[in-house]
Order: sequence, then C-alpha cells, then structure tokens
Amino acid sequence: MARIVMKFGGTSVADLDRIHNVARHVKREIDNGHEVAVVVSAMAGKTNELVGWAQAIPRVTGAPSPLYDAREYDAIVASGEQVSSGLLAIALQSIGVDARSWQGWQIPIRTDNAHGAARILDIEGAEITRRMGLGQVAVVTGFQGLAPDNRIATLGRGGSDTSAVAVAAALKADRCDIYTDVDGVYTTDPRIEPKARRLARISFEEMLELASQGAKVLQVRSVELAMVHKVRTFVRSSFEDPDAPGMGDFDNPPGTLICDEEEIVEQQVVTGIAYAKDEAQISLRRVADRPGVSAGIFGPLAEANINVDMIVQNVSEDGSRTDITFTVPTGDLEKAVSALEKARDTVGFDAIQSEAGLVKVSVIGIGMRSHAGVAATAFKALADKGINIRAITTSEIKISILIDSAYAELAVRTLHSVYGLDRQ
Amino acid sequence: MARIVMKFGGTSVADLDRIHNVARHVKREIDNGHEVAVVVSAMAGKTNELVGWAQAIPRVTGAPSPLYDAREYDAIVASGEQVSSGLLAIALQSIGVDARSWQGWQIPIRTDNAHGAARILDIEGAEITRRMGLGQVAVVTGFQGLAPDNRIATLGRGGSDTSAVAVAAALKADRCDIYTDVDGVYTTDPRIEPKARRLARISFEEMLELASQGAKVLQVRSVELAMVHKVRTFVRSSFEDPDAPGMGDFDNPPGTLICDEEEIVEQQVVTGIAYAKDEAQISLRRVADRPGVSAGIFGPLAEANINVDMIVQNVSEDGSRTDITFTVPTGDLEKAVSALEKARDTVGFDAIQSEAGLVKVSVIGIGMRSHAGVAATAFKALADKGINIRAITTSEIKISILIDSAYAELAVRTLHSVYGLDRQ
Repeated sequence: MARIVMKFGGTSVADLDRIHNVARHVKREIDNGHEVAVVVSAMAGKTNELVGWAQAIPRVTGAPSPLYDAREYDAIVASGEQVSSGLLAIALQSIGVDARSWQGWQIPIRTDNAHGAARILDIEGAEITRRMGLGQVAVVTGFQGLAPDNRIATLGRGGSDTSAVAVAAALKADRCDIYTDVDGVYTTDPRIEPKARRLARISFEEMLELASQGAKVLQVRSVELAMVHKVRTFVRSSFEDPDAPGMGDFDNPPGTLICDEEEIVEQQVVTGIAYAKDEAQISLRRVADRPGVSAGIFGPLAEANINVDMIVQNVSEDGSRTDITFTVPTGDLEKAVSALEKARDTVGFDAIQSEAGLVKVSVIGIGMRSHAGVAATAFKALADKGINIRAITTSEIKISILIDSAYAELAVRTLHSVYGLDRQ
Repeated sequence: MARIVMKFGGTSVADLDRIHNVARHVKREIDNGHEVAVVVSAMAGKTNELVGWAQAIPRVTGAPSPLYDAREYDAIVASGEQVSSGLLAIALQSIGVDARSWQGWQIPIRTDNAHGAARILDIEGAEITRRMGLGQVAVVTGFQGLAPDNRIATLGRGGSDTSAVAVAAALKADRCDIYTDVDGVYTTDPRIEPKARRLARISFEEMLELASQGAKVLQVRSVELAMVHKVRTFVRSSFEDPDAPGMGDFDNPPGTLICDEEEIVEQQVVTGIAYAKDEAQISLRRVADRPGVSAGIFGPLAEANINVDMIVQNVSEDGSRTDITFTVPTGDLEKAVSALEKARDTVGFDAIQSEAGLVKVSVIGIGMRSHAGVAATAFKALADKGINIRAITTSEIKISILIDSAYAELAVRTLHSVYGLDRQ
C-alpha cells in the first residue's frame, strides 16, 4: 500500500466523459489498495474564458487603464477548479469510490499575498490524511490557495502542477503522478525528431533544465518544489485506457519518473535536447567595462518586467570597453530596447543591435559534469551542418546555443543524433 | 444618506456590457451619498449549465442511480456567483468606485446543513458595515453561504433574492432594491391584460400571496424573510438607463415598494390577480370520514416530495363518507396517483379521479378582510362569462379558484376588470 497524489490537467478533465475516465484511473489505484489524493485543473478552455472576462471588463467600462484587481481576478479564475473538482468527486462516488472535493481555502492551502502569482507557504494535511486512511479520495482544487487576507490566491498559469507536488510533499506521498496529454518526458520533441525516445527516469536537475529550456511537460516551479522536497514525480498519460495492462504497476508504470539522481543507475552523459522559439537577441556595443554596468543594464529591464535569459559578456580586450549580448522573449523586444535607450547615458554604450525570431537549443545531461568534450561535440556537429552559432552559455549540466530559427529542427535532430539519443 | 442593498439577477449580469450597466446603477447610489452592498446572481445561463453537469455526470459514468452528493452540487453551482461578483467588483473599480467581492464563506453567511436547499441562519455583517462606512461597496455572492460542515451550501433556485433580503436585514439597510427584468409588481400579468397597472406599493402579505400564486417577480422565501424582518423591498428594472431622471430619487424611485401595510395609506380592496398554470386536480371519492384520514392521504404525498396546493373537503352528508379534492403540479400527477393507489387500503376510498392542465386564478387584497362580498363578486363575474368553477379555497386576503385552462386569460381579465384594477 502506498500514498499517491494524482494530478490531472485541463485537457484530462475537458468534458464529462474525460472526467469519467479520470475517475477510472483513480479507482484503479484505490482498488490496488493505495491511498489517493487527486489534484485537478479547470476544464480545458475555462480558465482562458475567465481570464478573458477579467481582463476585458475594465475596457468594457471605458476605464482609462485596463488594470484589474488581482484579488478579484483570483476569485474569478479560481472558480474553474471548483467546478472540475466537484464533478470529479461526483463521478468517483458514482462508480463506488468514496470521495470529496476540497477547495484551497477549505484545507487550507496557505499562500503568500502575491495574488495572481502566489507561492504556497503551508498545507494543513492532517484531516485529508485521516480521511485517506479511511479510503476516502481527496479531490483538491489545483492552482489556488488561501492568502493571509482570507481571500483566494492563485499560483499563476500552470500552477496546478505546483499544487500537486506541494500536496504530495505535505501528505508525505510516495509518489506524485502528473497525468497529462503526453505519455512521458522524451529525449527531445517527437514532433521534430520522430526517433525521440521516452525516458524511463530523469533527475530533478535535468528536468528543471528541460522545463526551463522550453519542454512544456511540467511547470518549472513544480520541478523546483519536487527537487527541494524530494517528491518522486511521475509524468504519464491520462488518455490511455485506465485498465490497460501495466497501468497499475506500482513499481514500473508507463511514463517517466523524475527522481533523485541517485535513483538513476545508468546515467547517460546527455539526457535530452530542448529548444525554445521566439528568442530575441540584443547586443550592446562598446559598453564601458566598469563595476555596476551590468546592474545599469539589467536593472531597468527587470523593472519593465522583462525576463532576460542568456547573457554573454566577453572579457574586454583593453579593459575599457566590451560587448554584452543577451536574449529576451521576442514579444518583449520592443519594450526592452526602449528601456535600454532611456538608460543609454547612465550606462554608456555606443549602439544597440537587436534581432528577433531566434531559437535557443540546449543540450542537457547530468553526466556532462564528469565528461569532458561534450560541448565541443555539439559545436563540431553544428558546424558540420553549416549552422552558425550566435551565442553560447553553459551551466554544469547544460549547454545552450543561440541560432537562426531556420536551423532549429536541423540543430535539434543533429544534436539528438550526435549524443546517441536515437539508440534504444 | 441611507444604507441600500441592491440585488441584480442573472439577466442583469448576463454579459460584460450588462455588468457595466449594473456598475453604473451602483455608482449612482454611491454618488448620491448612500452606503451600498450589492448581491448578485450568476450570469444568466451559467447556473443551468453547472446544474446540468452535476446532474449528468452520474449518468455518464453509468451509475445505477442518477443521484449526486448535494455538497458537491453546491460547490459546483456556487461558482457562478463567484465569477459575477468578481467581475462586478472590477467593473466598479474601473469606474472609480471602491469595491470588493465577498463570497458567502468569507463573510460568512452561515446556513444550516441542508445542502442544495439551505436556510440562512446568521450573517456576520460587522466588517462589511465598517467598510461601507468608508465608501467601499460590498459585492456579495447571492444564493450561497457556509454550512456548519465548513462547505458551501446553496439556498435553492432563486435564492439570490433571499440572500439580498437577509443581507439587508443583517446590515440594517434602509431598503433592499431588487433589480430585475420587469419594472415592478403589476395588478396582474401585463402579457395577459395590457391594462395591468404597476403598483406603487404592496404589503408584504399581499406580495407573499402573489408570489405563492404564480407571480414570478420574487422568490416566496425572500418575501417571507422581508416580512419577518420588516425589510422595505423595492422591485425595479435593471434595464433602464441608470442615470435617467428619477432613478436616484430615494423617496420615490420607479418601481414597486413592498412594505408594511401601515405604510400603505389608501388601501384597495383587491390589489392584484395572480394565476398559476399546470395545476392538476385529484379527487378521492367516498373517503371514510374519520380522524386520521387526511394524514393517511397527505402523508404519503409529502413523503413522495409532492407539493399539494388547494385542498377542498366538504362536510359529508351522512357523516360517514366524503369527497376530498386537491391540486398538485401537473408534473407530479402520475407520481401522486401512484402513491395514493398504494395507500388505498389504509385510507379507504372508492375511486381516484384526476385531471391535468388546469389553472388556478387568485384574487388578492388585504382590503377583503374588512369588505364583505368580494368572493361573491368574483363568482358572479366568472359565471356571467360562462366559466365553470371546479374548486374554491380562500384565506383572509385571497380567493383561489380552479378552472379549465382554456378560460385562464378570460378569467384573469374578467376579475381584473370587475375589481376596478383597470382604472388608474
């Protein structure tokens, strides 16, 4: 017997038939003798509809500013999970499984006061644990909790993954199963490279890099949280037949286990290739090379709420002037350039050059910590295909390379092949 | 300066434009210096959608019984008001009015444990009153509260009227304005009698009879509550221009005031004519006339959840056998007859006769307490038109007459005219 948290996203509860299917997945685990808590997202499309209304209403009233109160936004948007959790509880009861829904404020899942992008502080798990012990399934609303002001706070888009991992940590669950519309984590995007293989296991650190680098399987924050609390997290498909052979295999279900690297016996040098589209590059030419200049550049960008990704700064030749290159989302390029123009005098640089529509390709693997030459292999493979590298950044377990978007698919396939990820 | 509770139903908040319109109504009262709490229903259609899902999900799972957990039903269905209250709060803020939404559990509005048809027990009004004093509008979710089990309980369909009156009582409001899709209470249904006039005032007792007798303007329970707590309740239209002349007139706004009869100076003998369609008549022939026989008949009907309306029992000729006639909603007729057939032996009667599709027409007026001949006038007027009376019941302020449905409109117009309600 184990304690399992099962999380189902919006497409998995998109309509009543799919909710029934989710109930069958849950019943399978209950029938196998496990204690189960379920975390659900809103029915697919609902959150977008609610967000759309909250954003539109100030314009409808002719307000000079389209801003809205984040606390009201939260109250509106959180209603989606309230509906899906109630429907799933009824579906479970209908097929003979004891269940009740729990809204974030009822548990409570305590968050901070950052409405619209709140962080979970604490989850009161005692009553839920007690009921799970009696065989009752707890169906928990994802994406939301109770802020110190006694109002609902939401965690930001995709927050249900984070809710699930946080609930799993609070309930000391043996595993957190994230049911989604893909059947696991792949060595790269199978739509680009059909030879991509599903990974049986991947370490928290690698998954964190993969998620940060554009693999949309899991929200980055949920992986961080899983890593901190060592929550063994399983990514698997909600669309398979709940009673197909092996689906209830506790030790080895179909999907990808995200776990501590110690659990991964045969460590590969490279685990996966990720890519992120719509990157824009900004280069500042002949920036004064003195203390405080980086703060002068990136401070105004942070204030403008622009997420800066790769940053490349070379050692300057003569110690006085250097070039700084970094990337931002293409959608933020205009805003970033205008913020930098305003800072030109205080920072001191000659020119701003920018280019939109680039792609960042990343090679990820814990094994590269102890293997030399991983980066060189990538550079050579790309050079052989005539792909020009615009910028490079590296971390202990990741090499990121900025290239022209026309070469995105070719680069992904080339790297996937050169590290032997095609082979079973 | 006064304290006003304003209630807006589903059609009044059906879309963002209408929510903006509601915000303008609220702003008018704030600009006039009043303290305002608003009670809202869900956007039109939303509650039906949510109820439909809750009812359908057991069938989708193939459950042998279509029953659902009323606590889950409540959690699902209550989400509609959560959305409309948040949107209205943002709309108010957007036009410069300080506002915040309050969900039933946040105030809290405490109810009993009868999920799906709960009654309000108590409302904690102190914090809302304090904020109203600072100029903040409280936007309260109608139709719901917090049950003793710490879960959301709904009040049953139409419950937002009841919420509004209860909030008005708790906040000691000077008036409760029910904004709806009609502009007041009429002497009868204007779709049947174009000469129907809007009443400036009507007593609680009369409104209660009108609401019970089929006038759909207000929920019966809300009128009961208003009567008990003496909440002056104003029925008015939400579709008029919020800034039209007279709309903000505190003493005499356009609409109908429901108030204590002492406030009504020139009391009419008859105030209005109501009608209720789809009544079915059941007659039990030669029922044993002995103590306990009524309980033997109506007990089984109550157990089957059938709402019995008119009951007519004549004094039996020889003291041994009598006929009993009563009405039920046509939709319950079959169920009622089958419940009675089962009780035939214990009750003791010769035959059941029934007829569906009848109409009950009611003459209502406090003045008939002190005026003789009101009933006789009705009977003569209907006889003059050749309308056959099937059954009659009366109370102190009401005469109800059961007739064939073909004569419904003729009867309403005839009675409306004979009591002089056509005259200005």
